[in-house]
Amino acid sequence: MKHQPIGIFDSGLGGLTVAKAIQKELPSETLIYFGDTARIPYGTKSPDTIIRYSLQIARFLIKKEKIKCLVVACNTASAWALNDLRREFQIPILGVIEPGAQAAIDATRNNRIGVIGTEGTVESGAYVEAIRRLRPKAKVLMKACPLFVPLVEEGKLSGSVTESVALEYLKPLLKEKIDTLVLGCTHYPLLKKTLSRLAGSKIRIVDSATETAKSLHRNLEMQGIELSGRGGSKYFVSDLSRKFKEQAQRFLGRPIHRVEKVFIEKY
Amino acid sequence: MKHQPIGIFDSGLGGLTVAKAIQKELPSETLIYFGDTARIPYGTKSPDTIIRYSLQIARFLIKKEKIKCLVVACNTASAWALNDLRREFQIPILGVIEPGAQAAIDATRNNRIGVIGTEGTVESGAYVEAIRRLRPKAKVLMKACPLFVPLVEEGKLSGSVTESVALEYLKPLLKEKIDTLVLGCTHYPLLKKTLSRLAGSKIRIVDSATETAKSLHRNLEMQGIELSGRGGSKYFVSDLSRKFKEQAQRFLGRPIHRVEKVFIEKY
Repeated sequence: MKHQPIGIFDSGLGGLTVAKAIQKELPSETLIYFGDTARIPYGTKSPDTIIRYSLQIARFLIKKEKIKCLVVACNTASAWALNDLRREFQIPILGVIEPGAQAAIDATRNNRIGVIGTEGTVESGAYVEAIRRLRPKAKVLMKACPLFVPLVEEGKLSGSVTESVALEYLKPLLKEKIDTLVLGCTHYPLLKKTLSRLAGSKIRIVDSATETAKSLHRNLEMQGIELSGRGGSKYFVSDLSRKFKEQAQRFLGRPIHRVEKVFIEKY
Repeated sequence: MKHQPIGIFDSGLGGLTVAKAIQKELPSETLIYFGDTARIPYGTKSPDTIIRYSLQIARFLIKKEKIKCLVVACNTASAWALNDLRREFQIPILGVIEPGAQAAIDATRNNRIGVIGTEGTVESGAYVEAIRRLRPKAKVLMKACPLFVPLVEEGKLSGSVTESVALEYLKPLLKEKIDTLVLGCTHYPLLKKTLSRLAGSKIRIVDSATETAKSLHRNLEMQGIELSGRGGSKYFVSDLSRKFKEQAQRFLGRPIHRVEKVFIEKY
């Protein structure tokens, strides 16, 4: 298994927030990132389609790029496709929902947890299940925020439009006296400042990126998978739009100079 | 060619606004609709990807469904893929941009025309070219409105959020004293009321649906293609989400009872 890379994928570039956390946690590992920019978004599409797309991407990463483990950075894909992925492939496969649930449990004091995500993630019930498994008495309040992904993709991270959309989404959660808000979509960490201001200082905002990276670290150690890569990263996407560089920089916090386009539907 | 259906496709269900206009113009024709709901939206993706998707859909409609002519109801696909489609297939292929340009020319009095559309449509320059070909002295002002598609998909056709987004997009066009506004995306006709109110009664709002249907009618007659179908319609999509019925009803104005899912990437 030595020197094999870690694979990570997302519906687009939002998963770069998770990649960044993994690079910080495991700096000597080599990371292969795949963003399904030709078929983004996943959050509004059906479970069948999400599972089919996730299997294609995993085939590419495992068979062609020879990864030793897979991180499903997309919440919607974590919610729907994890079982099918684990059935088809033998390598360790980690989603972002269980780490996100863990982070929420660590943060909450009143056991009232709000989770925001795409329609697909909310519909799946995966967060409710994961949080309740860790703490059966927790009350979990879900809210789908379908306009957040397009707002972030447009770079509208603050301002009056974003605030009025966010307030509409947060209102029912705030009314229920949550003390913890889980950002259940890789795009949402970029809205953290705006969400913080609207939610007020008493509500802790958690995202799964850091917890996913830690969980990955523990997982690899437990499975005895050698941690001795040469660092570095490689980026693949299914569509290369004019906006790629600008968006990648926004999520990763630094520019990506080399990226390759893959016809993912062939896998 | 007798009894062969007319094919029409869009990136999703927005093209049903065009299908509706064609059914009104040519009620005895049979219509086959394909919505690429598994890969929507097109407007933010690259020309290469849009061309590849459009060719796959055309192959399905022409080879499998034996259509006699093809209407590209999606503005982004009309902007980028028309030449490639016409190169690969021999049947008549009609986009929505030329009819939209014609409608704008018929409506304007001061020759200052605003066009709103997706980023892809704006970037392509196709509307500017089409309008200038009809009236070289026209001044065409383009504005990309990337949040309109997600707003319409969410059913947010009016209200404070939609109005503040719309006002931001319209401002630069209104400042330039346009007297005509072209809705250069099949989703936008659903925002017509809101846009009308914000633009004021002096600005004429035109969409390409009616003009496309008329142009199709002329085209078929000119090419001597028999107009004697048995009416009716058939609907195909690449993803069948839980929201399909609600969204289809919104665009078509009546429910769709039967729809079939197609694995379009195989074509």
